[in-house]
Amino acid sequence: MKTDLELMGQKSQVAAQEIAQLSTDQKNKILNLMAQKLIEESHRIVAANQIDLAQAQDMPAKFIDRLLIDESRILGMAHGLQQVAQLADPIGDVERAWVNHVGLKITQQRVPLGVIGLIYEARPNVTVDASALCFKAGNTVILRGGKEALQTNLVLAEVLRNVLKESGINPDAIQIISETSHELANEFMRLSDYLSVLIPRGSKKLIQAVVKNATVPVIETGAGNCHVYIDESADEKMAVKIVENAKCQRPSVCNSAEKLIINEKIATQLLPKIAEELASSHVLLRGDQKVQAILGGKVQPATAEDWETEYNDYILAIKVVSDIDEAIQHINRYSTHHSEAIITNDYQNSQKFLNQIDSACVYVNASTRFTDGFEFGFGAEIGISTQKMHARGPMGLRELTTTKYLIQGSGQIRE
Amino acid sequence: MKTDLELMGQKSQVAAQEIAQLSTDQKNKILNLMAQKLIEESHRIVAANQIDLAQAQDMPAKFIDRLLIDESRILGMAHGLQQVAQLADPIGDVERAWVNHVGLKITQQRVPLGVIGLIYEARPNVTVDASALCFKAGNTVILRGGKEALQTNLVLAEVLRNVLKESGINPDAIQIISETSHELANEFMRLSDYLSVLIPRGSKKLIQAVVKNATVPVIETGAGNCHVYIDESADEKMAVKIVENAKCQRPSVCNSAEKLIINEKIATQLLPKIAEELASSHVLLRGDQKVQAILGGKVQPATAEDWETEYNDYILAIKVVSDIDEAIQHINRYSTHHSEAIITNDYQNSQKFLNQIDSACVYVNASTRFTDGFEFGFGAEIGISTQKMHARGPMGLRELTTTKYLIQGSGQIRE
Repeated sequence: MKTDLELMGQKSQVAAQEIAQLSTDQKNKILNLMAQKLIEESHRIVAANQIDLAQAQDMPAKFIDRLLIDESRILGMAHGLQQVAQLADPIGDVERAWVNHVGLKITQQRVPLGVIGLIYEARPNVTVDASALCFKAGNTVILRGGKEALQTNLVLAEVLRNVLKESGINPDAIQIISETSHELANEFMRLSDYLSVLIPRGSKKLIQAVVKNATVPVIETGAGNCHVYIDESADEKMAVKIVENAKCQRPSVCNSAEKLIINEKIATQLLPKIAEELASSHVLLRGDQKVQAILGGKVQPATAEDWETEYNDYILAIKVVSDIDEAIQHINRYSTHHSEAIITNDYQNSQKFLNQIDSACVYVNASTRFTDGFEFGFGAEIGISTQKMHARGPMGLRELTTTKYLIQGSGQIRE
Repeated sequence: MKTDLELMGQKSQVAAQEIAQLSTDQKNKILNLMAQKLIEESHRIVAANQIDLAQAQDMPAKFIDRLLIDESRILGMAHGLQQVAQLADPIGDVERAWVNHVGLKITQQRVPLGVIGLIYEARPNVTVDASALCFKAGNTVILRGGKEALQTNLVLAEVLRNVLKESGINPDAIQIISETSHELANEFMRLSDYLSVLIPRGSKKLIQAVVKNATVPVIETGAGNCHVYIDESADEKMAVKIVENAKCQRPSVCNSAEKLIINEKIATQLLPKIAEELASSHVLLRGDQKVQAILGGKVQPATAEDWETEYNDYILAIKVVSDIDEAIQHINRYSTHHSEAIITNDYQNSQKFLNQIDSACVYVNASTRFTDGFEFGFGAEIGISTQKMHARGPMGLRELTTTKYLIQGSGQIRE
């Protein structure tokens, strides 16, 4: 006897066979219809969101802001759907093709992953954004959002499902789990007979819980203890500008810098300028003993814990190193392998940093804030993978696909 | 306080930074030295193998054959090492490169995965083959072989490690776990702070245990419930030849056919010829009612369990379908998504099968036995992935790598 979740998995697999065969035009037409329908159903969506907001009135303002859906945010979601419709469809792309030694024509072609499980938290727009990306890449999706956004998510999913139904497409291409217990979440993470992959989106705590409990292959996203290293030869103005941007432009996101590593030969001269620049954004500085000696009262002592902490806040920990090798060693040890930058004017050091830093994105003379599907030109982003399997770095539509080998013969057998 | 296994993981990570930076020439030189050293140390290896063989004397002959290492098998392993040295090195290959909207030069380059965990069973040659492939792709490896081959594996690993040591390379690039308890295997599967990926090689039981218990990303390999579908329009001689080859050429391996699906319009005429051909190899036939009606006493009834069973033996289950759609539906339901073939002379049906079958390798008019890294021209094979994440189908050196993005700027910050 199958559980409710297994039945959802089965329905999603059935729908996946249909969705995988849709043409690009069919998918785009549906995405544009979904955009239209979201706007038409604005009142219902906002009304459902009011119920969620009423439940959340004791939560912090930041949380409520993430949960809130109003007319303008619905327009934003609709615009997002239209943008996904305009993206190039990776399905059918040929990665490689060749003829083997007995004349078999082998073609490695891009195909959908199949059934994607998505676990996320309070932001209801993920329901729409993620469904759109999965659908455009020919996949079906089973959504499991946070309980705080449940009423909003249920209505959003219903609107999208209705468009599928009215277009004669199996609506089970988009399903949402309406029970938000932890037990069910755990069962979901172990639904390996049905899910091709599980993508968690949200806090570090959520992602770690999924990695620890899942038997379904997981794409780990988002942890970002990012470093900027200022080399002895750095252009000072550029260094100040990049540190300020990497730390302050949007400190709450994963590609913001959390650590500054600086060469001792430039530290005494440059750190006060950086501290001054960051003071205008009220950044709290923590530093090792050498940093404290340079900055005095402007910096608090950094503890061992600081080096591995992702603050997502106006805090920056600073360490002085004697050379680039010490910087690389420190970064490779404490980084979450997301994004790291070197500011340098030394060619050899730029190459050394690019070669030896073991992270998804390694920068020379640019802000870590560019690690982003849109900035990379992918036109979309389902998350930023910090693991090495399957996808690494910003994930667009292509990363929501796999490949299969098509082999055309004329009666070949193996001797 | 770190456990012994965590310490091995840590050592492997340290070594991984060094191995990742080796040039192709350096790696090839070491692989060739390893080949030479294996031959020089033949006597020691065979002596250790004798200890394992003595322990295994009550095991079946098939098992003992897998475990046995003699001079000729050592030559085979040495030759394998030399072949890996000759393969093209994927490290440094550029997958994509472009300039983004603010002038950042973005290069997606192939880099090693890092630390690879390998869990395998009785065949000691895996110790050498897998270590060589991991090393050539710039990775370090931690090996956990079966307890039956422990003495042989320890000596093989020691020989390889000595070559590294004598070449001035960190020998922890190849480490072997000398304790073979299940508890330790379970700890190994959860060593996610150190292992980038875990590859199980061996029986279905082993692979399923790893998939169920691991928190480290796993590449699932080897399960092969492969189908051959004979379409109405098939060339009869070709069909008989391919079925015979797919079933009988080497029934113990994962790319052999386990099921024959046949169109009812050709079944009455063709099945007796296939049965006759397979009788010469003493293949046991099982069939549904229609097959039984055609073949009478030459076939036993197939049970529901047969459709999902991988026999790895001289057994073939046969099902009659009314059309290609029924065939595709049956295959997508029961297949392990490894390799499936259609024998047809109908263009539309060939395309339909290629498009709709959801397996790693889909064949038209060829034997499923070609799903193999060597037959594909990869020059090597670490396994055949039946999952959709990271790698699908035969895995060569390229599949033992990941990518990173190198981003070169001139002071860009995000506005």
